[in-house]
Amino acid sequence: MKCKFNFHEYNVNWGSSGQAHALRNALNAMYRLDNTEEHVKNYRPQILVLTGNLSERNHLLNFATSITKDSCLLISAEVIVSDNPDSLISTVTDEEAKCTAWLAKNKYRAFFHAVSSASLSDGVRQLLQISGLGKLKPNILLLGFKNNWKTSKLDDIAEYVTTIGLAFDADFGVCVFRCNSENVTDSENVDECKPLMDQANQEEQRQTNNTELKTSINDCQTFTIEMVEDEFKSENEPSNNAKPKKTICQNFSRKNKTFKKCNFYLKKDLFRQKVKHATIDVYWLFDDGGLTLLLPYLLQLPKSYLEGAKLRVFTIANNKELEHQETSMATLLSKFRVGYTEVTAIPNITKKPDQKSLDEFQESISPFLGTAALSESELLAERSRTWRHLRTREFMLANSSDASLIVITMPIPRRRVCSDLLYMIWLDLLTRGMPPVLLVRGNQRSVLTFYT
Amino acid sequence: MKCKFNFHEYNVNWGSSGQAHALRNALNAMYRLDNTEEHVKNYRPQILVLTGNLSERNHLLNFATSITKDSCLLISAEVIVSDNPDSLISTVTDEEAKCTAWLAKNKYRAFFHAVSSASLSDGVRQLLQISGLGKLKPNILLLGFKNNWKTSKLDDIAEYVTTIGLAFDADFGVCVFRCNSENVTDSENVDECKPLMDQANQEEQRQTNNTELKTSINDCQTFTIEMVEDEFKSENEPSNNAKPKKTICQNFSRKNKTFKKCNFYLKKDLFRQKVKHATIDVYWLFDDGGLTLLLPYLLQLPKSYLEGAKLRVFTIANNKELEHQETSMATLLSKFRVGYTEVTAIPNITKKPDQKSLDEFQESISPFLGTAALSESELLAERSRTWRHLRTREFMLANSSDASLIVITMPIPRRRVCSDLLYMIWLDLLTRGMPPVLLVRGNQRSVLTFYT
Repeated sequence: MKCKFNFHEYNVNWGSSGQAHALRNALNAMYRLDNTEEHVKNYRPQILVLTGNLSERNHLLNFATSITKDSCLLISAEVIVSDNPDSLISTVTDEEAKCTAWLAKNKYRAFFHAVSSASLSDGVRQLLQISGLGKLKPNILLLGFKNNWKTSKLDDIAEYVTTIGLAFDADFGVCVFRCNSENVTDSENVDECKPLMDQANQEEQRQTNNTELKTSINDCQTFTIEMVEDEFKSENEPSNNAKPKKTICQNFSRKNKTFKKCNFYLKKDLFRQKVKHATIDVYWLFDDGGLTLLLPYLLQLPKSYLEGAKLRVFTIANNKELEHQETSMATLLSKFRVGYTEVTAIPNITKKPDQKSLDEFQESISPFLGTAALSESELLAERSRTWRHLRTREFMLANSSDASLIVITMPIPRRRVCSDLLYMIWLDLLTRGMPPVLLVRGNQRSVLTFYT
Repeated sequence: MKCKFNFHEYNVNWGSSGQAHALRNALNAMYRLDNTEEHVKNYRPQILVLTGNLSERNHLLNFATSITKDSCLLISAEVIVSDNPDSLISTVTDEEAKCTAWLAKNKYRAFFHAVSSASLSDGVRQLLQISGLGKLKPNILLLGFKNNWKTSKLDDIAEYVTTIGLAFDADFGVCVFRCNSENVTDSENVDECKPLMDQANQEEQRQTNNTELKTSINDCQTFTIEMVEDEFKSENEPSNNAKPKKTICQNFSRKNKTFKKCNFYLKKDLFRQKVKHATIDVYWLFDDGGLTLLLPYLLQLPKSYLEGAKLRVFTIANNKELEHQETSMATLLSKFRVGYTEVTAIPNITKKPDQKSLDEFQESISPFLGTAALSESELLAERSRTWRHLRTREFMLANSSDASLIVITMPIPRRRVCSDLLYMIWLDLLTRGMPPVLLVRGNQRSVLTFYT
């Protein structure tokens, strides 16, 4: 009697030498990389993206993937804030394993780090210092816009702005992405969506398993997490309940035993599905080494949700040399081999903004005026900058309302000169009520070169 | 006229495509590794070693290299403690660049991480959580023994023990190495040698450059750093001034503006030069997954400073089944394919220790007795464990005084049961006045297998 044994029938991990070689190869490749010198031609955007728990919120990761295209380093990270971070060390290990499995299952080429820390900025500092290995180290921090800043405590805003400042200190380029999509609501922000919502997930999974309900890609899923916080019990009610399929209520404790109201909607594969006939509007306002130009260029290359998008470049010019500025920018872009459709110079950037803009601005800062957070004297001292941002906003609203994405140079937070709140207001000015906006600021390192 | 251009004459970085490929290869290899499953056969000791600044103290790194042999991951790390860790972010970047360059120059295959944090344990927690990338992640924490524990504040001891506990919580194996060499003095410890001593280095370099003095490998370099601390002005005077070549005095500020007296000696290439006819004594007292056995096995393989060493294995046995225990251990070792010279079972481990040992123990704890740190009731409650460690110590002194290295299973810190000070005393008992000792404790993960 012949006995046939089919090796491939059994899904068993035999501990093959191939696995051992994979480790050896990875290690050797890493050491070899460490011995190469850096050069502008070999610059790659390597992104550290603060996504929080991936199974709940992955649009930032989707967006980052369009830039890294599986051929640059992408690290997705979650900061779990706790008064006693030491006690969360095994939770963090579990979370990391879970999200790494999620990445593999959903075919993302990215690594995941979870970290417990006493505060958001503390956790991000750790990530900036330690994440990556050797030369395979991130050089860009990508984080979501703090949409709930108006209802946040000043400390939270300070944390957020400190985080951005730390990234600059650590020689990172910084990107802040404001989704402005109806499918991600007001409370979508780095800080709020951190808590582990396993219960909600399990509930969802159970329902899905039981009814074998397949949600179509374009459908929305709504999670409403009920929490209590005195200051905004009714303010933050969901106003745009786009097709809620199921609602899951859950109470969970947060840092310092405070509870918050948080609603968010996830559109599956947001920023993963390709957009046809897209336009990317680039506002290259300051020279930051070229990152503001490189990222939109990469976004319109293949393997991006904006593949084949038109690139329109806007730059600042003195009124007199408007045409000259446009020509020289066009020449520069050609030298950089960046294809573009249009080059426009923004005139009169230092002019006084329209009365309508000024009124709108006054209205938006009115809740803070007179408080210690925002003094009249500071507003006066920074008036020229505020006006400049207002003028830019006017120009963006007039020209880029129909763009698929706006990429704009981000102002730098200047500690001790400009308060965290005013900086947050500026970021809001440059992003509110527009298509998705990516604020970008390189760390002055050249990322573009004339030479092939 | 012919013009000859020799490409290789110029040491210019052209930004070659080879460099770009190195990055791509490393990234691809890393992602491929991430998709392999883990298996005991593919277990590799991947070490995170707390070395501090490498140019001052590299014997721990040398020792770790003997285990990883350039074919496993080795990450050397420095924790820079500061009350305002955010402000040190650029210092840390510089330090990392400097030490990475040092590693390359001295031909170590290792990565370096520097991190600023509010405390040692905080910094180590960050390293445990974030260091490494994907599956290329350390699984063993190696740290130096806190030689100055007797003169340290209780808080410092608590920090040290917490650090060890955190590593266990994070599912790491833990190794504590006590050098016991005359060439590294009393104050050699993780905490003390962190401060950046660039000035001392520069001074040294200047002298070396000026006189072109080449220090031979076996020579010692002495740095005496003058600091002031009231509690031990004269206690800690160097007693073994082994061949001091030059003395550099320097004052520098420390955390909380306290100053300490710290003397240390560096023997260049300590634990890098091969030892002939070496013996490694292994005390495998508890089953920890096999790490206590795997590390000495690796240490006697080629590419180690103890290459070809004899392995003597000691284990605990009930008196009656002494021979049986020895035979079964020998069988087990053969199954694991670990070559050994001798297997000895330790008899009567629970017996009362000699009066001499007890007296010595009483003397060593006398400074703490009666204080809040060490109560009589705790000593009584933990008496059986203390006796056990004393008995082990007696056996080690009797049998292993001439060994080149002792590897012994480390007790686990049990918070809320055993105080940090008593735990420190135990570690001291198992390591004082002996050849170099490596305390090892695996995280229960099997690292040895019968199957080839």
